[in-house]
Amino acid sequence: MKVIKFGGSSLASSEQLKKVIQIISDDPTRRCVVVSAPGKRNPADTKVTDLLIRYADCVIAGRDYQEIAQQIIGRYQEIALGFNFTPEDFAPIRRAILNLPLATYQDNTYLMAAFKAHGEKLNAQLIARVFNLVGIAAQYLDPSAAGLVVTDVPDDAQIKPDSYANLRKWQNNANVLVMPGFFGYNDRGEICTFSRGGSDITGAIMARGLNADLYENFTDVDAIYAVKPNLVSHPHAIGHMTFREMRELSYAGFSVFHDEALIPAIQGNIDVNVKNTNHPDAPGTIISARIQPSKEYPVRGVAASKNFCGLYISKYLLNKEVGFTRKVLDVLYKYNVSYEHMPSGIDDITIIMSEDNLTPDIEQAMMSELQTTIHPDEMHMIHDYAIVMVVGEGMRDTIGIMARAATAFARANIRLQMINQGASEISIMFGVAQNEADRAVSALYAEFFKQD
Amino acid sequence: MKVIKFGGSSLASSEQLKKVIQIISDDPTRRCVVVSAPGKRNPADTKVTDLLIRYADCVIAGRDYQEIAQQIIGRYQEIALGFNFTPEDFAPIRRAILNLPLATYQDNTYLMAAFKAHGEKLNAQLIARVFNLVGIAAQYLDPSAAGLVVTDVPDDAQIKPDSYANLRKWQNNANVLVMPGFFGYNDRGEICTFSRGGSDITGAIMARGLNADLYENFTDVDAIYAVKPNLVSHPHAIGHMTFREMRELSYAGFSVFHDEALIPAIQGNIDVNVKNTNHPDAPGTIISARIQPSKEYPVRGVAASKNFCGLYISKYLLNKEVGFTRKVLDVLYKYNVSYEHMPSGIDDITIIMSEDNLTPDIEQAMMSELQTTIHPDEMHMIHDYAIVMVVGEGMRDTIGIMARAATAFARANIRLQMINQGASEISIMFGVAQNEADRAVSALYAEFFKQD
Repeated sequence: MKVIKFGGSSLASSEQLKKVIQIISDDPTRRCVVVSAPGKRNPADTKVTDLLIRYADCVIAGRDYQEIAQQIIGRYQEIALGFNFTPEDFAPIRRAILNLPLATYQDNTYLMAAFKAHGEKLNAQLIARVFNLVGIAAQYLDPSAAGLVVTDVPDDAQIKPDSYANLRKWQNNANVLVMPGFFGYNDRGEICTFSRGGSDITGAIMARGLNADLYENFTDVDAIYAVKPNLVSHPHAIGHMTFREMRELSYAGFSVFHDEALIPAIQGNIDVNVKNTNHPDAPGTIISARIQPSKEYPVRGVAASKNFCGLYISKYLLNKEVGFTRKVLDVLYKYNVSYEHMPSGIDDITIIMSEDNLTPDIEQAMMSELQTTIHPDEMHMIHDYAIVMVVGEGMRDTIGIMARAATAFARANIRLQMINQGASEISIMFGVAQNEADRAVSALYAEFFKQD
Repeated sequence: MKVIKFGGSSLASSEQLKKVIQIISDDPTRRCVVVSAPGKRNPADTKVTDLLIRYADCVIAGRDYQEIAQQIIGRYQEIALGFNFTPEDFAPIRRAILNLPLATYQDNTYLMAAFKAHGEKLNAQLIARVFNLVGIAAQYLDPSAAGLVVTDVPDDAQIKPDSYANLRKWQNNANVLVMPGFFGYNDRGEICTFSRGGSDITGAIMARGLNADLYENFTDVDAIYAVKPNLVSHPHAIGHMTFREMRELSYAGFSVFHDEALIPAIQGNIDVNVKNTNHPDAPGTIISARIQPSKEYPVRGVAASKNFCGLYISKYLLNKEVGFTRKVLDVLYKYNVSYEHMPSGIDDITIIMSEDNLTPDIEQAMMSELQTTIHPDEMHMIHDYAIVMVVGEGMRDTIGIMARAATAFARANIRLQMINQGASEISIMFGVAQNEADRAVSALYAEFFKQD
């Protein structure tokens, strides 16, 4: 059997939902459907989740919330009307939205979690009803009934491992299960959401819990591409890739999946198939634990992220100073700044970190403490920094990848500020100036995928 | 004025010493001569320092030491006879060698330090006398008289900074100073030696202390070469290089200077000239703080060291685990294992360390503790490891160095296990299998110096 997850754009309107119905009808092994909240119908539209956040903000601030509540109701109503719901059919959805402010919440973070989660929850209820109306034997499955218990962190919960035994009981359910993504319940029965992108997590959890043969993740692209589609025309579509390749590329800015979304699928060793709701016949991209390396494409993808900075520290005879790095890391730890990479020369290190870690105040305090702790000869923060990554399991067995990559940089006249490749040899990381990052990605893409 | 240091092979015999006399006579600004112990006269010979270590070992073990003492006396006697010393002239040297076991020492490490230091001490006394005999106004300067005070570590002393004020008083001495390298005295007046290569350190200390215009370091090679001379025929001689280039190359296996030998010269901003006692007219190699980068040779040298190993650790979502690296470094610290570099992927790190750190027991205990502390998915030690380095200040301003280096590796069909380049951009470090290291160096040399 297959677990199948639909993203927000696949569920944004009754028109889109008709495609979903066709997809479910086409394959009787699609037994569990995990749904997001309705997404954007066009680029100017607002996602229901974002409307719910505004709704919650109004409630918290004591402002009038009737208009925003009606706007949310309107989004679900459009879908319901597309399937000829009677007012009675739709009443529970309307009531649930209007009742949200009336419940009691432990504090505003739990309130916010509950409001947001209803984007998915109400959509799953609505879709289960739609399925029934069009003749699919389906039922709504709430995470509480499913036994999806999560840690007590309202906006960044993790599944509790015991949940999988609960989920397993739904493996041979007679009806197609329609389940909301994005949230579970803590031990006290309160809603806690996963981090953003959490419907993908629920899909992976259900795939593992139900021991699915395949986890189909339907979005609005035909495939995962070897490069961000806005950088090149007709980008190479990836037919098959590994979890590790996916993870390394998402680290470097690929936005298809959140880093952690696939962990349950990896743990359950379940293949993932990314497909397009609008072109369900396209094969999409398969992600699995292992694949045969391709001689033709040893590189799976290239990506860049501008969300990094580098702290350069040099000190003569640095590498003779026992414990130097520990001292530096202790200071970083004190300021709650986590480092990402630490390429080094003989007497210098560059500490690569996410910009998210830093405010100007933290940066100044941290560097001032480093100054007095380690007495560097030179120290400065490089904010104009981007990390460019070349990723592919096949690189391990192919001599000359680095030569081709570095030659591509040289041809494009781009200076390499940092290079980092560990023993895994599945990726090489380059540091370049931010304004050269896109050019670097294009140059690397041209080098490794120019046959296309 | 110039401080001039002669290595052991320049002082191994009376014949060699005649060249030294000529060099001193040729340039009246050579006012301070720092000498090593007599070195090897031919490849099968033994250095006097090594004879002294055997002598000390016999004394410590209570074995008969007459034969080894006579062998040491013989080495100095050969030099003395070459300059027609009378038995009375030579008597103090003989007596000093025979009296070494009669002194009292705090413990055996101090005994060993005193025995070893006499290789230089007696040679300096002998050479001062030789200079007088051939008409050079010279005097022996003992480190105690000079005021060269060192920390109380018998075999790895450091100069105490106050010493420089003492040394400064000898700046305008009427006679040429002949000073033994390799040792100083602690606050209690006991001999403590520098680490191996310590005569170079004394030379640099004297150059700084006397505020010399130049520190001439005479050895048995015409120049420092861009590559180890045994790897290529007619290697490129380096005319001028920076201290940092020297340091990075010595780290990677260049044996001309010990890492720390040049620190006093760097601190005093004194240029160093490496010259050949056997070809004193050859210009040698100048090492200074800064030089104009060369367009023709952006790379100054290539070198490899096989004395490293790599500990590979991978764990899924490693980079989400706050404090992961600190935990690893804490375990290393506990076993007194210092790391050198830490290239990383997203979910793996490779910790490069010197093989000197490890015994099989330490390695096993450390890895077992890492296993229980950090629970890696995969962990193994790579002993078959060599670090290849490409070094040059000019690399910073030249795009395409990495491309040329990586292409050289690819042409030679050598797999790159690790690449590491920090923001200083003065060197790039490659990890390769040990048995490919020499081939890698040759390939890189051919790429960057093929015009020669």
